[in-house]
Amino acid sequence: MHGYTDAKDDYLKRLRRIEGQVRGIARMVDEDVYCIDVLTQIAAVTKALQAVSIGLVEDHLGHCVVDAARQSPEEGAAKVREAADAIARLVRS
Amino acid sequence: MHGYTDAKDDYLKRLRRIEGQVRGIARMVDEDVYCIDVLTQIAAVTKALQAVSIGLVEDHLGHCVVDAARQSPEEGAAKVREAADAIARLVRS
Amino acid sequence: MHGYTDAKDDYLKRLRRIEGQVRGIARMVDEDVYCIDVLTQIAAVTKALQAVSIGLVEDHLGHCVVDAARQSPEEGAAKVREAADAIARLVRS
Amino acid sequence: MHGYTDAKDDYLKRLRRIEGQVRGIARMVDEDVYCIDVLTQIAAVTKALQAVSIGLVEDHLGHCVVDAARQSPEEGAAKVREAADAIARLVRS
Repeated sequence: MHGYTDAKDDYLKRLRRIEGQVRGIARMVDEDVYCIDVLTQIAAVTKALQAVSIGLVEDHLGHCVVDAARQSPEEGAAKVREAADAIARLVRS
Repeated sequence: MHGYTDAKDDYLKRLRRIEGQVRGIARMVDEDVYCIDVLTQIAAVTKALQAVSIGLVEDHLGHCVVDAARQSPEEGAAKVREAADAIARLVRS
Repeated sequence: MHGYTDAKDDYLKRLRRIEGQVRGIARMVDEDVYCIDVLTQIAAVTKALQAVSIGLVEDHLGHCVVDAARQSPEEGAAKVREAADAIARLVRS
Repeated sequence: MHGYTDAKDDYLKRLRRIEGQVRGIARMVDEDVYCIDVLTQIAAVTKALQAVSIGLVEDHLGHCVVDAARQSPEEGAAKVREAADAIARLVRS
């Protein structure tokens, strides 16, 4: 049971759509589609992946972090540190 | 009293350094420094600003969000929603 | 014939690996893997997609834009404008 | 004489505005403004810096890279390589 469990089906649907979009980009490259159009499509997939990440972060904060904080300040602090590292990787990616 | 209050002096020092770096970039443009060198410097400032943001997010989660969660699940949820929106703006900026 | 034609096989291989990584992320969600580990994996895929984009931009500049510039300043300028828009979408994604 | 020379005054004006915005962020921190509002303002400054970068890249491609390409394919290729590295730093920042 994790932060995203309630919305699992929605995440799976979005990830399958993204998988299909990546396959579509490979097909574009294979069919020699114009570079700029390939780039536009990659930017769309990157945005879709970021949206999934942001949703997962929100679910994680709302469940795992909030629950830990309600257990004890120490457990809250440990989860916050871990979440902040994940957010940093996200911002830099 | 906010999440970043303990580290306020550190944030102020970093922001003043960033302000000086932006002034330095204006000087580079004014003195016709090579475009690529200006771009390298802007990338460095952007990274420094992101590092400040990530620090502020961590402090915010560790204080405001954790405190709200310990008050009540509802207050925790409201703070999480607000923090997630701020993180989304950060990821997209 | 596009900027990336010479490296087409390499791009296809990388895109197929990315497609597999996205499928792996869906599997992680399906198996209730811990949110933070899912986020780490999404950040890795986003980085891999950005690396493909940067490669495509370089190939595009080195072929389509340079060729256009050698045809005429006007054609060069048109291709530069188009490339800059694609780069902007990339930076903002 | 560089790619951005024609628009130098515009860049200087934008960089001075950004410098003022960074000073404003330091003031917000000094006056204990709410973390989320500080983060919103940092995201705005980051976007403004990225817009300057994208403008500089376009000017650089349209002048330095196009001119080099018109000199010789080798000079064009060298400038493209250098520009692609700068774009990569921009995308990753």
